Amino acid sequence: MDSGELGALCAEIRNKMIETVSKNGGHLASNLGTVELTVALHRVFNAPEDKIIWDVSHQAYAHKLLTGRFDSFDTLRTEGGISGFTRPDESEYDFSYEGHAGTSVSRAAGIAASNKIKGSKCFAVAVIGDGSFGNGLVYEAMNAAGNSGGRLIVILNDNEMSINRNVGAMAKYLAAVRAKPEYYRFKAGTEKALNRIPLIGIHLSNGLFKIKTFLKNIIYRSSFFEDLGFRYIGPIDGHDIPTLCEAMSSARMIARPVLIHVNTIKGKGFDFAENSPENYHGVSEFDVNTGKSESSSESYSSYFGRVLCDFASKDSRICAVTAAMTKGTGLDRFFEEYPARSFDEGIAEGHAVVFCSGLSIAGQIPVFAVYSTFLQRAADQLIHDGALQRKKMILAVDRAGFVGEDGETHQGLFDVAVMQSLPNTVVYSPASYRDLSKALYNALYRDEYLVAIRYPRGSMPEGGDELTNGEDFEIYGDEGAPFALVTYGRLFFEAVNAVKTLSDKGINTKIIKLNRIIPLPEESVLCALGSSHVFFFEEGMKNGGVGEAYSEALLENDFSGKYTHTGINREFVSHAGVSSLMKKYSLDCEGMVRIIENEAYNER
Amino acid sequence: MDSGELGALCAEIRNKMIETVSKNGGHLASNLGTVELTVALHRVFNAPEDKIIWDVSHQAYAHKLLTGRFDSFDTLRTEGGISGFTRPDESEYDFSYEGHAGTSVSRAAGIAASNKIKGSKCFAVAVIGDGSFGNGLVYEAMNAAGNSGGRLIVILNDNEMSINRNVGAMAKYLAAVRAKPEYYRFKAGTEKALNRIPLIGIHLSNGLFKIKTFLKNIIYRSSFFEDLGFRYIGPIDGHDIPTLCEAMSSARMIARPVLIHVNTIKGKGFDFAENSPENYHGVSEFDVNTGKSESSSESYSSYFGRVLCDFASKDSRICAVTAAMTKGTGLDRFFEEYPARSFDEGIAEGHAVVFCSGLSIAGQIPVFAVYSTFLQRAADQLIHDGALQRKKMILAVDRAGFVGEDGETHQGLFDVAVMQSLPNTVVYSPASYRDLSKALYNALYRDEYLVAIRYPRGSMPEGGDELTNGEDFEIYGDEGAPFALVTYGRLFFEAVNAVKTLSDKGINTKIIKLNRIIPLPEESVLCALGSSHVFFFEEGMKNGGVGEAYSEALLENDFSGKYTHTGINREFVSHAGVSSLMKKYSLDCEGMVRIIENEAYNER
Repeated sequence: MDSGELGALCAEIRNKMIETVSKNGGHLASNLGTVELTVALHRVFNAPEDKIIWDVSHQAYAHKLLTGRFDSFDTLRTEGGISGFTRPDESEYDFSYEGHAGTSVSRAAGIAASNKIKGSKCFAVAVIGDGSFGNGLVYEAMNAAGNSGGRLIVILNDNEMSINRNVGAMAKYLAAVRAKPEYYRFKAGTEKALNRIPLIGIHLSNGLFKIKTFLKNIIYRSSFFEDLGFRYIGPIDGHDIPTLCEAMSSARMIARPVLIHVNTIKGKGFDFAENSPENYHGVSEFDVNTGKSESSSESYSSYFGRVLCDFASKDSRICAVTAAMTKGTGLDRFFEEYPARSFDEGIAEGHAVVFCSGLSIAGQIPVFAVYSTFLQRAADQLIHDGALQRKKMILAVDRAGFVGEDGETHQGLFDVAVMQSLPNTVVYSPASYRDLSKALYNALYRDEYLVAIRYPRGSMPEGGDELTNGEDFEIYGDEGAPFALVTYGRLFFEAVNAVKTLSDKGINTKIIKLNRIIPLPEESVLCALGSSHVFFFEEGMKNGGVGEAYSEALLENDFSGKYTHTGINREFVSHAGVSSLMKKYSLDCEGMVRIIENEAYNER
Repeated sequence: MDSGELGALCAEIRNKMIETVSKNGGHLASNLGTVELTVALHRVFNAPEDKIIWDVSHQAYAHKLLTGRFDSFDTLRTEGGISGFTRPDESEYDFSYEGHAGTSVSRAAGIAASNKIKGSKCFAVAVIGDGSFGNGLVYEAMNAAGNSGGRLIVILNDNEMSINRNVGAMAKYLAAVRAKPEYYRFKAGTEKALNRIPLIGIHLSNGLFKIKTFLKNIIYRSSFFEDLGFRYIGPIDGHDIPTLCEAMSSARMIARPVLIHVNTIKGKGFDFAENSPENYHGVSEFDVNTGKSESSSESYSSYFGRVLCDFASKDSRICAVTAAMTKGTGLDRFFEEYPARSFDEGIAEGHAVVFCSGLSIAGQIPVFAVYSTFLQRAADQLIHDGALQRKKMILAVDRAGFVGEDGETHQGLFDVAVMQSLPNTVVYSPASYRDLSKALYNALYRDEYLVAIRYPRGSMPEGGDELTNGEDFEIYGDEGAPFALVTYGRLFFEAVNAVKTLSDKGINTKIIKLNRIIPLPEESVLCALGSSHVFFFEEGMKNGGVGEAYSEALLENDFSGKYTHTGINREFVSHAGVSSLMKKYSLDCEGMVRIIENEAYNER
């Protein structure tokens, strides 16, 4: 392809992305920024023998469009359709499931190590954004791999953004590299003077190659990445395909790990996204002509953020902490109103928890708002730096439960299992905004140490506050009913409808609604002992879940009825709408009715 | 104190350490190396207002001896005595429980941030070894804190060692810093020429201070740490108290975070330790005159290492990975025999798991040997980079269960709860070496994806292999017995004795021994359904444990008997000998007999 054809290809890719995401929602700005980079990667490297690992993989749409998924791309993020992230079961060009930041360098390092063992000449390439570069995994990987001598190439896709604008010293360092005129800039023209080495002729021109390497050594000597053992090439214009290809070809010839620093523009080619990339990172459907999507209504996140501000206005100890998710977690208002007590620690959940413990040791009340799936990254810190320290720390665990279209890597289904065994810890799973507010009050002023409040993505069903009163647990319906339906979180609203339907069918069922799920309120178990059959419904993993703890509490209290626990049973949950997932796992009203009704007939 | 008195103090501290550790065991080499550093810290900083955080805190003995614990120090690591690590409940000079690497900078950053909010002029100081510097948390913390302007000082205690000799680019970088003559070396004499600024006169000499800062800026310009936003001072002789004090005093005057790079000699002052510090990192009791301790016999760790070598001799895909624990995990022989397939990734458990997934994607069979407590640090990686990827990965989880004298931060009690909810995952908890060997075979050639094999510290009881046969589960005793004792791991040997004693008392109990604990073998549950009372004993957390899953499986299979689950119930387990802990938590033979006997009388 000549440069005109390449330009046309890139335009076609961008159009397809904009068209699809405007209908299906998805990641837009990051994908628009990596079109030329992806084209260059697939020109220089021989996938699938050379393995390209996309960090987080929310920027892999162009990769998907170039590797056989153009025609099916309009199914993006729909059930059974193309995933928004890389998936080995979708294509031989996808080598891993990716969705969490900072894993790509470690993964590529492992592949490169294996290639070295086997004597293979193939490359492992990690493509990673500068936002992910604040994550410690990347540093661990570069530290370990830097001197490995493997065929490992890291492409640092520097767009000065993660979801938030980047924070921290690394962001500042990269900005300095970009700005300094004395820094060596890799340009096709300049490079050519030194670089007349064809790929096939490399063994003939070792002398020349060494001179070039030596020169580069001097020029790059002070680089952060060189200190980590990587050869540094950059910064490069990430929208100039010939320059990208030359840099990558050069990197292939260097007998040690290489980092190529590429500057891209997030949102490139779509004015709305280019002008405010933070609003077009992850988007729901929007109008292509105006760039506008429906304005979102009150959500658990925004409600949380508002209530936290109210508490903070009266209590100056309260601090808010985020791991690069100020807006998504509803903390934006807090950050505006209380900047001195607001901390964006970058994509570094482990550090954020330990940092909170430091705040707490010195007398603050830290509130760390984080998505459930990303809290997994701080599991040891919850044990060692949260629960063990016996100090106040509050976790606002957003996106708990099904998250929907983002799929496996983003569902919030594991946090309960991770927290189940923690001493000195209380966990709430509110159904309503009122529950959430009460839980936050308890966390601040009633409970002693580590407290987590987990709530789902999206909005409370209308009228939810009227149905709930924020107690640790509540019983609805006839206390003497033979059947008990136990649940927590937003499933409660499904249960309310299910019990009505069952009642119409003559099946008398009470609801035991938990707000505090760890440790279980003792009374919430005792009140079920008289039931002939207890049904536990849980929007989370069945093993290690609340229902499992509940079953043991029943049994240790000599319960002799039957027990049915419905949850996610040892599987990862793929992308699909939340209501579709609720249905699939029998966690919606219909599913509850069906399961309980069946048992009622069996037991008659 | 003059220099002679300081020298005598340091000698006294060292003598006390050597004397105590030779009797009680503990960390020796790291503590001998930080005596002068600790004296200097307590001279320059005003603890407890200034807060010193000791990373891992296995080097805090001198700190303990200097802060009111000299007289009680001979109780070190004994039940109820002085802990081998910092503990806020032991002294107002200890601010945190520490035992995992890399947390100190985050924690100190949180304290510094709180001080800034409150307008306090106190300092937060993190003391961290170069080994911990491979951990990503440190990088996350420095990246986030570098530009904070808080009163944060990081002391990098560089002894070229963690437990292993350090690996990775950072170790190489530090070695280069140490070696380069053109690097600025902070020396009391040299410094004095520039540094006539008394601490109290600082406001009078701002101009001079700025010149000094400017000069340093030029000298240090290319430092890795400066890129991360820290002012760098060093390297300094860590055994020269006046120089240390001056460097620390200078650091107090710099209005941004400072890193002081201190060179120390691990094992300093005790020849045996100085000559082979890796053998005197963590030691059991030894002879002060010969430096020798009893040679250790075969352990689960060494057995594992040997069997893995056997498999590796026949299967070239097998790779071994460690996070700086080659010897402790028994991998030393593998590393000698198969260096090309051996990977020490530094203290970086998260990265190690993702690295393994890369090896696996490219066709190797990675075996990551890691202590249970440190595996916690890779919880998200187990989910996202282990289980989700659907590739073969084997975890050899050492030190599972009670670890003993190291206390809260080192017990291996949470790994089961963390793995309980994982899809695509199998977990074994062998009792005997034979069980372990069989589990490893299954992991390699029978099971499909992620497999963890967890086994305890120490050795198998004699005759253990004869009592076991490595099946997923086994039944011992009369199948129709009214009582069933269910357990796994080394508790099985306690159970065998308990059942004998019970039998003598006329109480007929069978044992259901689990080797595969996740997922539970279905038959291992069904065979207990006929029992009137099931007793589950577990050397691990009760909530989220195997016994909880077992109870639910019983209940969902309409079990109508009684159930008693004995494990660790929402508490952290302090330091004490393993057998003492077994007794304390009723997990030894006596405890089992007592619990079952009581119930037998109650039910009669």
